[in-house]
Amino acid sequence: MSISVQLHNDLEDAANRMRISAIEMTCASKSGHPTSSTSAAEIISTLFFHEMKYDVANPKHASADRFVLSKGHACPILYAAWEEAGLLSKEQVMSLRKVTSDIEGHPTPRLNFVDVATGSLGQGLSCAAGMAYVGKYIDKASYRVYCLMGDGETAEGSVWEAAAFSSYYKLDNLVAIVDVNRLGQSQETALGHHVEIYQARFAAFGFEAIIVNGHDINELIKAFETARNTKEKPTVIIAKTLKGQGIDGIVDQENWHGKPVNAIKARLHGSQKGTLVPQKPVNDAPDANLHCGSIKIASPSYKIGEKVATRAAYGTALAKLGDVNPRIIGLDGDTKNSTFSEKLLKKHPQQFIECFIAEQNLVGVAVGAQCRDRTIPFTSTFAAFFSRATDQLRMAAVSFANLKCAGSHVGVSIGEDGPSQMALEDLAIFRAIPGSTVFYPTDAVAAERATELAANTKGIVFIRTSRPALPVIYGNEDHFAIGKAKIVKQSASDKIVLLGAGVTLYECLKAAEQLEKEGIHCCVIDPFTIKPLDQVTIIDHAKRVGGKILTVEEHYPAGGIGEAVSSAVADHAEIRVRSLCVLEVPRSGTPDELVDLYGISARKIVDAVKKY
Amino acid sequence: MSISVQLHNDLEDAANRMRISAIEMTCASKSGHPTSSTSAAEIISTLFFHEMKYDVANPKHASADRFVLSKGHACPILYAAWEEAGLLSKEQVMSLRKVTSDIEGHPTPRLNFVDVATGSLGQGLSCAAGMAYVGKYIDKASYRVYCLMGDGETAEGSVWEAAAFSSYYKLDNLVAIVDVNRLGQSQETALGHHVEIYQARFAAFGFEAIIVNGHDINELIKAFETARNTKEKPTVIIAKTLKGQGIDGIVDQENWHGKPVNAIKARLHGSQKGTLVPQKPVNDAPDANLHCGSIKIASPSYKIGEKVATRAAYGTALAKLGDVNPRIIGLDGDTKNSTFSEKLLKKHPQQFIECFIAEQNLVGVAVGAQCRDRTIPFTSTFAAFFSRATDQLRMAAVSFANLKCAGSHVGVSIGEDGPSQMALEDLAIFRAIPGSTVFYPTDAVAAERATELAANTKGIVFIRTSRPALPVIYGNEDHFAIGKAKIVKQSASDKIVLLGAGVTLYECLKAAEQLEKEGIHCCVIDPFTIKPLDQVTIIDHAKRVGGKILTVEEHYPAGGIGEAVSSAVADHAEIRVRSLCVLEVPRSGTPDELVDLYGISARKIVDAVKKY
Repeated sequence: MSISVQLHNDLEDAANRMRISAIEMTCASKSGHPTSSTSAAEIISTLFFHEMKYDVANPKHASADRFVLSKGHACPILYAAWEEAGLLSKEQVMSLRKVTSDIEGHPTPRLNFVDVATGSLGQGLSCAAGMAYVGKYIDKASYRVYCLMGDGETAEGSVWEAAAFSSYYKLDNLVAIVDVNRLGQSQETALGHHVEIYQARFAAFGFEAIIVNGHDINELIKAFETARNTKEKPTVIIAKTLKGQGIDGIVDQENWHGKPVNAIKARLHGSQKGTLVPQKPVNDAPDANLHCGSIKIASPSYKIGEKVATRAAYGTALAKLGDVNPRIIGLDGDTKNSTFSEKLLKKHPQQFIECFIAEQNLVGVAVGAQCRDRTIPFTSTFAAFFSRATDQLRMAAVSFANLKCAGSHVGVSIGEDGPSQMALEDLAIFRAIPGSTVFYPTDAVAAERATELAANTKGIVFIRTSRPALPVIYGNEDHFAIGKAKIVKQSASDKIVLLGAGVTLYECLKAAEQLEKEGIHCCVIDPFTIKPLDQVTIIDHAKRVGGKILTVEEHYPAGGIGEAVSSAVADHAEIRVRSLCVLEVPRSGTPDELVDLYGISARKIVDAVKKY
Repeated sequence: MSISVQLHNDLEDAANRMRISAIEMTCASKSGHPTSSTSAAEIISTLFFHEMKYDVANPKHASADRFVLSKGHACPILYAAWEEAGLLSKEQVMSLRKVTSDIEGHPTPRLNFVDVATGSLGQGLSCAAGMAYVGKYIDKASYRVYCLMGDGETAEGSVWEAAAFSSYYKLDNLVAIVDVNRLGQSQETALGHHVEIYQARFAAFGFEAIIVNGHDINELIKAFETARNTKEKPTVIIAKTLKGQGIDGIVDQENWHGKPVNAIKARLHGSQKGTLVPQKPVNDAPDANLHCGSIKIASPSYKIGEKVATRAAYGTALAKLGDVNPRIIGLDGDTKNSTFSEKLLKKHPQQFIECFIAEQNLVGVAVGAQCRDRTIPFTSTFAAFFSRATDQLRMAAVSFANLKCAGSHVGVSIGEDGPSQMALEDLAIFRAIPGSTVFYPTDAVAAERATELAANTKGIVFIRTSRPALPVIYGNEDHFAIGKAKIVKQSASDKIVLLGAGVTLYECLKAAEQLEKEGIHCCVIDPFTIKPLDQVTIIDHAKRVGGKILTVEEHYPAGGIGEAVSSAVADHAEIRVRSLCVLEVPRSGTPDELVDLYGISARKIVDAVKKY
């Protein structure tokens, strides 16, 4: 398709106006990334005013094309695009980086045209792939997803996880664009202007890979057209550009990353004001009908004493969630037969996404899938391997994402596989996420209820499950609530509170029984959620028993249950806390041997209570 | 090179003996991964008994070739190799996965022939690349590095970070082998037996990429020979294999991952006992002469009140460390002009490795570089981006690695760049690492001393540095020690302890001055190390002032200073702790605005003290 000279000039003018605006904003804010912005001006102009279909007044429109600015530091050009489109005023964009403004230093979903926060590089393509997966296979709609990346960020492995995922699932509604402006923050990138290497890499990862001059509107338009006509595979447009393009004396020069500039060389063909009107979306995306807050599943059906692993109960509950809502989806990283997410796959294969061994992309795809409330994604892998996605989880919080994570195989009770497979820092990681909810169900009933509550709780939720099959202790109709602990054992003569969860709750109970025989009565508390912690119940019972709490956990000290409880009672002078937890790198052995060796067995609890 | 029929048969016999041993071990332990082991038997046989040069009696020999089993779950075949070589007895290998044995479920450096722990997939190639970099550029020795990966784990992005690094640095002493046995844990891998796609991907990432039948000794030998003759680029051998090869009824079948098997079909040509003798190393690696514990640098030279950012002081100290020892190296992820690691690069370019924007590989390469005490690696990036490498850091602990990490730009005081760039969970992550040391220097003098102490402290060390330039408060000759806090302000009439670090220490001081004017005296403590925390000093002063502590930090609550202090004093009933910290996802703004907005400014401290 060839376009008219007029349209070509209009798109060039739009690019230059956006360039000027990006430079003006960053001059006003005295910080920001104008040079990273101007290299992408023609890409953005072509996308926003020729290629993409969207609704300026309603950027979250269910059928609108999506745009992810993975190179988030170039957000001045994104803000300029929405200014050019008419959504943002000059005054708004000029408030860049001010504390009173949502026009932040890197984009966040505080702005209605931003789906996912970016700024930690290499994460955008996973999110875009998640959106494209939902568009193609769940919404079955025609909207397309565009992701603009920097060249430097393709050094991030997460980009290649996302690339492999996108071609495996034949996401022909996904277009990646790489702004190859040659220069990183501190020096030239590893590949410089060798666009043919980028092309070879993406082609090998299953993309239609097109090289263009990123400042040539005609080449860009043609490449987007090729992408639209490419079936069964994603497309990448490798755009050779110059950093600082349009800025006198700075173009293609080092040492201008993240610095405001003054001189502007941006020729306008015509009007000082844009006249281009974006294409409207095609209304073919269905309603999502997600009613987070009122999702109910069939009650658990266990017998007290029956041995069931909480990971298995998670799988059962996830499959039930799949029964009641077709937009509750499961994602796993080739551990579905260990996390039991395969129960959802077997019942509702269309609601399950195998993400293979790529946990960063697993979380990134899920973050993309939950955008605009299209789905509620439940991700699962060994809890230890969620650590691989810590940065994606951190950014999911900045994205205010509605994301569920179920991590299995926590602690030393996994046994023989050894320390590489044991999660002993996952509570620290997930508790540190602002606004997160952290479930630690002890038995199968609690695990099913936690999973159901997770579906009804907006935000980032972690469900910590255990490997061993242990007895059911709660009734199928017992009530569970976030921030509400269970008092598993108590008497009027209690002298101490024992607090454990999962495997250690059973050890606490065993210890309490033994101590009872020796005349020492213990109150045993199961917190159910570690965040929020049931501060009131813990403090009340601690005071009732005379002030002593002993926490017992399969976790390292930092950020675990002991610290959570210590800080929760820290302002109460009459309460003391001691903690039993794992203090060194464990080794292989049987679960029972390790629970004892690392000091969290009933035997060690009895000792600690006697010495308290 | 063609080999004799005898040698061919001997190598095949060795492969089959190792196969049988791997099966026997996993039968004895009733768990483990025999099928993942037997697919690699010929690869291991060829490597250990034809290709590699090493000293069976001294696996850590400075000039010996290195072997990294990235697919750590296949360790039975690794143990079988060292049994075949004569290092391990039958009794030892049959103790697999027992709590009394170092023959663990996944390999750890508790064994002298293991350099780095594996078992979290996709990490081995980074470590191998770090070893190869040191071999080629620092040791300038002829030893070679071999890394055996699974096919499933190449879905991990970290593999591609390592691949890009290896070709960028022309690591022709590095050979990756991919055991393409087609089957993952829960289903077929994304690429199945499409070895040509693996070849294309590695070729695009700059490797000489050779496809072989992984069960054909002759093809393997030839491929290793090609690798040895390939200059200026790394080689990958794509070995097409069958999972469970040699095991009747199980070969190439699904649902046999991680399960012991019984039936064995392994033909032995000749002897039941191995006669192959590995090649000896060529003694050309120099002594490393690292004397961790006695490294001294020139004293800091600042004036009290001079404004210097701790990140800048880190760079200064790192460069000084480079002066005194050529094996102290710096590694950065394209942030060297922000972390100031560029000061080392400018002074000692041969001691600096630019790792580009790939933090997982940054840490992985450093872990590889520290093996066998060849170097002391100091890695640096924004503290927020170390979160990208959380799993690598977790595994570095299992590797008992001597690794230094300096994370800059912590907290809201970075200002306008916004939340994506702010580290607010890094203390939780680094404190949770077993055996770690966490420095949080407040001023430039403390930062230089922390860096010097880090070089002298074995294990994983984190140095948390800040963006703003703030006044020097310590004398150049002041003594700093791990676990020893500084009392920055005190009087006999103190009524509360204020504890802060970095930016918040200054806020504590400002608050204390203001409160003093109102007659409220505060003791101000700078902990210097957050782990270990100076429990004695904190408790003593808390008791002295009547029991009240207020902590103030640029961090989320979980795993931060507040929780560290709360748990440190938790057993002391008369001490109370309250904490000021960041409670929500921050936004862009000026540093001062944000420090106040998120409740950790002098003004907010004054309020909190008055309400306590």
